[in-house]
Amino acid sequence: MKVLLVFAHPEPRSLNGALRDVAIKELTAQGHEVLVSDLYASGWKSEVDRADFPSLAPDARFTPVRASGEAFAADALTDDVQAEIEKLLWADVLILQFPLWWYTMPAILKGWVDRVYAYGFAYGVGEHSDSHWGDRFGEGTLAGKRAMLLVTTGGWEEHYAARGVNGPIDDLLFPINHGILYYPGYDVLPPFVAYRVDRLDEAGFEATAERLRERMRTLATTPPIAYRRQNGGDYLIPSLQLRPGLDDPGVTGFALHLKGAAAAAPAQD
Amino acid sequence: MKVLLVFAHPEPRSLNGALRDVAIKELTAQGHEVLVSDLYASGWKSEVDRADFPSLAPDARFTPVRASGEAFAADALTDDVQAEIEKLLWADVLILQFPLWWYTMPAILKGWVDRVYAYGFAYGVGEHSDSHWGDRFGEGTLAGKRAMLLVTTGGWEEHYAARGVNGPIDDLLFPINHGILYYPGYDVLPPFVAYRVDRLDEAGFEATAERLRERMRTLATTPPIAYRRQNGGDYLIPSLQLRPGLDDPGVTGFALHLKGAAAAAPAQD
Repeated sequence: MKVLLVFAHPEPRSLNGALRDVAIKELTAQGHEVLVSDLYASGWKSEVDRADFPSLAPDARFTPVRASGEAFAADALTDDVQAEIEKLLWADVLILQFPLWWYTMPAILKGWVDRVYAYGFAYGVGEHSDSHWGDRFGEGTLAGKRAMLLVTTGGWEEHYAARGVNGPIDDLLFPINHGILYYPGYDVLPPFVAYRVDRLDEAGFEATAERLRERMRTLATTPPIAYRRQNGGDYLIPSLQLRPGLDDPGVTGFALHLKGAAAAAPAQD
Repeated sequence: MKVLLVFAHPEPRSLNGALRDVAIKELTAQGHEVLVSDLYASGWKSEVDRADFPSLAPDARFTPVRASGEAFAADALTDDVQAEIEKLLWADVLILQFPLWWYTMPAILKGWVDRVYAYGFAYGVGEHSDSHWGDRFGEGTLAGKRAMLLVTTGGWEEHYAARGVNGPIDDLLFPINHGILYYPGYDVLPPFVAYRVDRLDEAGFEATAERLRERMRTLATTPPIAYRRQNGGDYLIPSLQLRPGLDDPGVTGFALHLKGAAAAAPAQD
């Protein structure tokens, strides 16, 4: 398979850098082709602004959605954005690797999403009708491909558990897994998360590395998160509310959007 | 009161720009002092990188947490970051205003958080003991102050409701409200959210503006979201798990971290 790894840590000699190298080595050993977008090393520009749309008239009001759609349609996106779009189209698997900063991705990676996810490419795709509300949440340009997160955090696993003070890790990552990866069509694999990384000794690193190698060996076979397809019949259109009766009465929040949510809901541990 | 509004939209002639002006005008009319950090207009740098820490030796491994802590302790943060910290200390109320892009804040605002929230200022504060796990989640440098989000989105309110396909808006904003604002001590007010803003006509704008004015008039009196204090007895230390028996059995996910979560949980509408 072809794998694109988007890397968002400023220090190559970091744990993230080491884990990236572990992943690439294992993927290569398995015969996969790997491309890396190293956002810091390439000097990625994080901000969506007028400079992204050189064809916009200097006195025109800048509306990001409209400018993005017009530039995508006219093949007038900037070269850095266009290159990332081509990598996404090339890759069978997308891996986003980042340290969890303030419970989500670093700004530079958010800026990769904000800029690369053009209107007409990652959203604003497909028709709207009584039974179909755009190609999104399970359909879209990137359907048929797989994606997963590779995340490190200084916090303890318990702090991110079902009853942990940070909130459950699956819920913290839902806006990314569901809202950014599932949205344009990816099958989203469960995330790889390394906890308490500030205190990792050699044995801890090797255990983490081996766990990561196993995930890299099973990229093609790991079952994706069972999100419900927006246009698959589970949602009313156009309100996009989950139909009554599909879920267990005890399930609320993000877990509603999983098929068999009752089984998948976090245990009260 | 003193109010700091951090503004993260690239176009002053946008709906966001208009709502910002509405907010400022009403706050000023109420006798409040207002400062605006206009991130795009000021050319805010979004990426945490080595340039943020000029005293770091060129060949030293860059560890963001350590570099941040050392620079904060040595009063060696960059001028742009230091200026924002001083504004945060000055302000009684912080408002973060942004369009919801991919279910969270734009990269430039995430970069404001990543860079301004220095170690020793916004995290890494307070002692760790058997009954206290740092000054955070309800305690910290910014305790006693209030904060709120001012958010616009093109999506419909129904799509962000308890059973909407995007996930409930309160859950989508939890990593910001709880993880970014409550963490360093803010009392977090319920967010102001304007939906379906791409289709707003003049009457729609005026209704939204009036709703916003009312929120600006009640900044001092609106009850904050009833998050549980980390060190207030509700969590076991050091696992930071919510103690058994405090919550209703039907409540899961982020809603567990609200006092009286059963009452506050989203209705099955």
